[in-house]
Amino acid sequence: MKAETFRKAAAEALGTTLLLAIVVGSGIMGERLADGNEAIALLANTLATAAGLVALILVFGPVSGAHFNPAVTAVFLARREIALSLAVLYVAAQVVGGVLGVVLAHAMFDQDLLQTSLKARDSAGEAIGEAIATFGIVLTILGVVRTRPDAVAFAVGLFIAAGYWFTSLTSFANPAVTIARTLTDSFAGVRPADAPIFIAAEALGAALALGAASLLFRDAARD
Amino acid sequence: MKAETFRKAAAEALGTTLLLAIVVGSGIMGERLADGNEAIALLANTLATAAGLVALILVFGPVSGAHFNPAVTAVFLARREIALSLAVLYVAAQVVGGVLGVVLAHAMFDQDLLQTSLKARDSAGEAIGEAIATFGIVLTILGVVRTRPDAVAFAVGLFIAAGYWFTSLTSFANPAVTIARTLTDSFAGVRPADAPIFIAAEALGAALALGAASLLFRDAARD
Amino acid sequence: MKAETFRKAAAEALGTTLLLAIVVGSGIMGERLADGNEAIALLANTLATAAGLVALILVFGPVSGAHFNPAVTAVFLARREIALSLAVLYVAAQVVGGVLGVVLAHAMFDQDLLQTSLKARDSAGEAIGEAIATFGIVLTILGVVRTRPDAVAFAVGLFIAAGYWFTSLTSFANPAVTIARTLTDSFAGVRPADAPIFIAAEALGAALALGAASLLFRDAARD
Amino acid sequence: MKAETFRKAAAEALGTTLLLAIVVGSGIMGERLADGNEAIALLANTLATAAGLVALILVFGPVSGAHFNPAVTAVFLARREIALSLAVLYVAAQVVGGVLGVVLAHAMFDQDLLQTSLKARDSAGEAIGEAIATFGIVLTILGVVRTRPDAVAFAVGLFIAAGYWFTSLTSFANPAVTIARTLTDSFAGVRPADAPIFIAAEALGAALALGAASLLFRDAARD
Repeated sequence: MKAETFRKAAAEALGTTLLLAIVVGSGIMGERLADGNEAIALLANTLATAAGLVALILVFGPVSGAHFNPAVTAVFLARREIALSLAVLYVAAQVVGGVLGVVLAHAMFDQDLLQTSLKARDSAGEAIGEAIATFGIVLTILGVVRTRPDAVAFAVGLFIAAGYWFTSLTSFANPAVTIARTLTDSFAGVRPADAPIFIAAEALGAALALGAASLLFRDAARD
Repeated sequence: MKAETFRKAAAEALGTTLLLAIVVGSGIMGERLADGNEAIALLANTLATAAGLVALILVFGPVSGAHFNPAVTAVFLARREIALSLAVLYVAAQVVGGVLGVVLAHAMFDQDLLQTSLKARDSAGEAIGEAIATFGIVLTILGVVRTRPDAVAFAVGLFIAAGYWFTSLTSFANPAVTIARTLTDSFAGVRPADAPIFIAAEALGAALALGAASLLFRDAARD
Repeated sequence: MKAETFRKAAAEALGTTLLLAIVVGSGIMGERLADGNEAIALLANTLATAAGLVALILVFGPVSGAHFNPAVTAVFLARREIALSLAVLYVAAQVVGGVLGVVLAHAMFDQDLLQTSLKARDSAGEAIGEAIATFGIVLTILGVVRTRPDAVAFAVGLFIAAGYWFTSLTSFANPAVTIARTLTDSFAGVRPADAPIFIAAEALGAALALGAASLLFRDAARD
Repeated sequence: MKAETFRKAAAEALGTTLLLAIVVGSGIMGERLADGNEAIALLANTLATAAGLVALILVFGPVSGAHFNPAVTAVFLARREIALSLAVLYVAAQVVGGVLGVVLAHAMFDQDLLQTSLKARDSAGEAIGEAIATFGIVLTILGVVRTRPDAVAFAVGLFIAAGYWFTSLTSFANPAVTIARTLTDSFAGVRPADAPIFIAAEALGAALALGAASLLFRDAARD
């Protein structure tokens, strides 16, 4: 592996590790302190996730593009902006990193390192929500990266902050995050049995965003 | 219709769809989780709306200008910065998009897709609040777009965040949003009977902002 | 009065009007919705004030400098960056605008337009807090304006957000705001009898910041 | 001492003073108002700390680099980007400033100026959390400063906002902050007996970040 390739994969792995540590850790802390008020716990979870995600994209963006998300990597593959071999490596790094992040969060809060979520999330509305969330985040990336690359980190963090509240599953919007969340029996968890439908919804949302972007964001020159 | 015109109208429709999904969806989620504390629900609604609006303006601004608001389109028409035919198309796209967004929010939260709000909001103060909210948002756009176009998305999101709290109706500040909100019997709803006075107040606020901008922001060269 | 001068004074008046409508209005809304939890009310008040202030500085900064604050105007006068006659006009516009903003907030929330605050705030710690708050905000302006003028609006809003929580009086940090707050018997109010000591503390804080800035921010070239 | 050196040390001292006044003061205010809901108190503490830190870095960054943190100064020393004599001066200024900031916070809230924390924080998870927090903040600085120096202040503030929630000790991430926090028996305090292990964890996290940065952020040219 070339040094350049190693750095990119390591950035995806480390970035996704930190992202999941943030998602799961702040969920644990939020629930622990919120005295049973779930809205307050989710406000804390939202603040931490959005703020941390912006910081991580600023740090790792110049190295790997800061995908942290197989759906995003797949979209760039479909647009031929990343090679297949590198895309496979990215997805592997994201999944492994996500799992490590959950383990780290458990270690920080003195919990069992390996857990399985018992939290059922299985309504039709939540699958719709997940498709919309992924549609939105992919469209945000594709829309902003071409006109204001300096603002992508902020746009992504802000859209996820909104998504935590306006979509019914709180916007996992990311298959690596969905897999990792099955491994924690805490605020941010989701039952393994419920994960496949959400991953399918994420794939659908990403595909729709890819199409919408090609309609909406075509270069004026081509018309 | 030219491809360029289609893209602009589609951007207004899709952007307003997502905006209303955010406004209504985060209201439902906020109320569901907040254990009856309305301030916590409104904090969540504010965070989601402001964050999402900034992201949407960053995404769609380069395509259509990201009005998402008939009052804003009317102001640009009055300033002769948009053609009448395109302005009419924009307003239609915004109204249709807004309604679709409410339906999407209901679908995500497994509610009846079509509803009518029963939430009375009919004090004189709320109409004054709505005029001030629209005055403020239009003045913000006209003031910032000429000096710091890169900051418009942030300024608009921040002003709306403030408006959710300092104006008594929580700043609809947008006739398309007002119409759409009559179609949800949830946190963000408003009774159809109360909508016309607010739309009139929005028109007044926008007109006042147009006048204030022409006084305050005239080019130094012209004096 | 020249058109240029009129526009500057009008911008100071209108900006301070909106600032006080935000401070007082969001305080009323926060207290009304927060079910007696003062921290939640202050979170809402903080969010609205900081967000609104950033937007207002972006809007009015290019017109008048967006002082909205006699302490800031006095500091620029001491640095000979504003003429005395214009400074006097600015302060008058700020005080009048602040009072109007309070009246507007009352109108929006269907309250008596003219009120007198009964809220005692008279500890020594609060006066110290007010000196520190004004010191901080003036130092922030003087420090950031010379190196990153594009970031001043954000720095000021962020410092005020911090000040609402870390200083014991919640950072009025502004004599026009202090005077205006005596005229509302709501969350953001302060008893008229307590105002003079806070205004004196603000003057002290501003003077200290002026001195600190001249020590810390001298041009390297001069040494 | 040269004027340039004096200004740098004074900026570190004053910046760290204000930082600790913010951390401790907002903790006191948050706890005082939050009616026993610790999550609400920590939300306020997070908002104030992150917002204030961004403002302080914008103000003092151009003067001293705005380290405010012996771990950060040590990392720049290891990278030979600061002279040993200046680094020693920085650390002294940070420690003295931090203590002064705690005293100021106590003065503002009419508390005993000198206190000792009784708050036990001694789990293994908290030490792990502290290593991760410091790893993250140092990696954020090293990653962003080389590609987007204008965004460092925002990235650092955002990462700390996340760290307050996702790491189990709420991210002191700073030996000067850790020492200063032993001197307040309030929300932000930590028992003196618990401090050494956290400072060791911070040193470990900073060292790991230094190594990770040299792997991840090497110039492409060198490979």
